[in-house]
Amino acid sequence: MTELARGAKISDIGEHVLIEAIERRIGSGDAMVGIGDDAAVIATPDGRCAVSTDVYVQDVHFRLNWSSAHDVGRRVAAANLADVAAMGAAPRALVVGLVLPPETEVGWVMDFTDGIAQECESAGAFLVGGDFSSGPMVVASATALGDLQGRDPVLRSGAAPGDLVAVAGRLGWAAGGLAVLSRGFSAPRKLVAAHRSPEPPYLAGALAASAGASAMLDISDGLLADLGHIAAASGVVVDIESADLPIDDPVREAASAFTMDPLVWVLAGGDDHAMVATFAREADIPHDFTVIGMVNEASGDFGVTVDGESRPELRGFDHFA
Amino acid sequence: MTELARGAKISDIGEHVLIEAIERRIGSGDAMVGIGDDAAVIATPDGRCAVSTDVYVQDVHFRLNWSSAHDVGRRVAAANLADVAAMGAAPRALVVGLVLPPETEVGWVMDFTDGIAQECESAGAFLVGGDFSSGPMVVASATALGDLQGRDPVLRSGAAPGDLVAVAGRLGWAAGGLAVLSRGFSAPRKLVAAHRSPEPPYLAGALAASAGASAMLDISDGLLADLGHIAAASGVVVDIESADLPIDDPVREAASAFTMDPLVWVLAGGDDHAMVATFAREADIPHDFTVIGMVNEASGDFGVTVDGESRPELRGFDHFA
Repeated sequence: MTELARGAKISDIGEHVLIEAIERRIGSGDAMVGIGDDAAVIATPDGRCAVSTDVYVQDVHFRLNWSSAHDVGRRVAAANLADVAAMGAAPRALVVGLVLPPETEVGWVMDFTDGIAQECESAGAFLVGGDFSSGPMVVASATALGDLQGRDPVLRSGAAPGDLVAVAGRLGWAAGGLAVLSRGFSAPRKLVAAHRSPEPPYLAGALAASAGASAMLDISDGLLADLGHIAAASGVVVDIESADLPIDDPVREAASAFTMDPLVWVLAGGDDHAMVATFAREADIPHDFTVIGMVNEASGDFGVTVDGESRPELRGFDHFA
Repeated sequence: MTELARGAKISDIGEHVLIEAIERRIGSGDAMVGIGDDAAVIATPDGRCAVSTDVYVQDVHFRLNWSSAHDVGRRVAAANLADVAAMGAAPRALVVGLVLPPETEVGWVMDFTDGIAQECESAGAFLVGGDFSSGPMVVASATALGDLQGRDPVLRSGAAPGDLVAVAGRLGWAAGGLAVLSRGFSAPRKLVAAHRSPEPPYLAGALAASAGASAMLDISDGLLADLGHIAAASGVVVDIESADLPIDDPVREAASAFTMDPLVWVLAGGDDHAMVATFAREADIPHDFTVIGMVNEASGDFGVTVDGESRPELRGFDHFA
C-alpha cells in the first residue's frame, strides 16, 4: 500500500499499517535506528543525553476545532524541543506516544505527523519512534532528546545576585492568540498562529549556554511563574523592569482592542517557549536576548517582582488547581 | 511540606508540590540532572542512546479496579524498559508523562511512582523526569533510555535462514491472568500478578546481544504477532515447534480449569515482555533462552508457522482494529 486514503478511519487501517505509512512519509532522519523497531538508537557523541517529556491532552492543551492536526503536532513537538534547548542542548530526536479515538481519520494522523516533522526540522531534530493506543480522546506525549555538544547543562538553580536577566523569543503572543480565539475572533492572525504553533528560539538556548548563562528555562507557564522557578531553585529574588519588557506590536494591538494591559499576556502567558536566562554582568549576552531585569539577594522569601512589586495574580497555570 | 496526606486530592496540592514530593520520595538515581529542571541529563558513555516510548490508557491497557496504582506504574515502566533491553541495551533512565483526573488522590500518584521506581530498579534504571496534565482519565506514557555498552543494537531485520529461534521469560502468564480476572476469579494468583505487573527478563536482552543474536524483540503483542514482525522485517519464515514451547505450570493449570488450550495464551498472549531472539546455529545461546524453532527461507509470503501451519487467528491485538 503506497498511499492511504485521508478519509479512511484508522480503525479500518490498523496501527501497523499506520506506522509503516508514517515511516514512508517522513523517514527517521539521521537516527542510527529509526521508526519500526523496539527502540530507536541515536548518536550521543557528547556522552550525555538531555531528555524531556510533555503530555498534551485534548480540551486541556488544545481544542480540535481551534487547532489543526498540523498545529497540534507542532505544539507538542515545540514544547519538548524547547525544554531540551533550554538546558543548552541541541535537540536531536523526538519520540511520540499518541492516543487516538478509533474513528480518527488517517488524514488527521498524517497532518499531525507532518506538524511534528516540521517542528523537528526547525529545531534540527528528527522523529525517530512512537507508540499508538486507542482511547476516548486525543492525548499526545512527546519526549525530546538533545546533545549537549560539550556544553554544561544550564540549570534553574544557578542564578546569582548581580546577574542580569534576559529573554529571547516571543512573550505574550500565544496568550494573546488564545484570548482572541476565546472571544470568537480569528485576528490578529499572527497571534492566533502563535497560539496554534509557537516558534521557540531553539538556537538561543545553545547560544546562551555557550555565553555562560548561569540559569535558564523556556517559558511554558508564563514569564513570572517560570522566573519564580529560577528564583526558588537559586534562592534569589528576580526583579523585572516592565519598561524593558519587549511588547511586540501584535500583542500591543490586540490588548488595546480588548482594552486590557498587554503586560498581563507578557508576564503571565505561557506556551511561546521563549528562553529566559540569567548571565553574569561580564558575560557577552547573545544578541537574540533582551535584558529585562536583574537578580538580587533574597532578604526574605525568594520570588519575582515587577517594578518592585510582587504580582501573585499573574503566577500562571497549575494543571490540578 | 515533608509529607502529603494520601487521601488529599491532587487538585488541592497542585502539580509543583506533587513533583517536589516525588523528587523527595525517590530521587533521580545517578542522573547527572534529575527531576525538577526543563530536562534531565543522563550519561551515555557509549555515544549512542536507545530510546523507546509507550502509552498506556485507562480501560484500554488497565482497569483501575483490577490493577493497583503500583501495578500500573510497574507495567508502564516494564513495557518501555523491556523495549530498550530488546535492542540489547542496558536500561538506564525513564521519563513519564501522566494524565490524571483532578480528583485523583495523592496516595494513588505516590503508589504509581513507587511502582515505576521499583520496576526501574529491577532493570537497573532510574526515573529522571516527567510531566503532569489533568484529563478525564488516567493516561501514562513512559519513555525509556538505554546504554548499548558497546554492543550493536539487535534489530528485527537480522534473522537469516538457518538461525534458531529462542525465547527467554514468561509466555502466556499475563494473558492467563487477564482471562482469570475477566471471568471474575482472582486465582491462580501467580497469573493474576503477572497480568498486573510483568517480570521481563531484562538482562536476557543484553546477554542475547552479547551472544550475537541476529534479531530480537520483546513480546508485547503475542509470540506469533511479534515473530511476524521479525519475519516481515527479515524477509523469512519462522517455524515454531509447539512441543518445544515452554508451558509453565500456572498457565497449564488455569487453561485446564477453563478447558482451553494453553497454547492460545502462549502463542497469542502479550504483555509478559519475554525476549524472543534468533541466533546463528554456531552461537552460544545464553542459558536463559529456550530454543523453540528455526528460521527458514520464505518461498512465498513471510510469516510464522506453528508445527508447519499458519495460525492467523492468533495474530494478536491491533489497537485500532
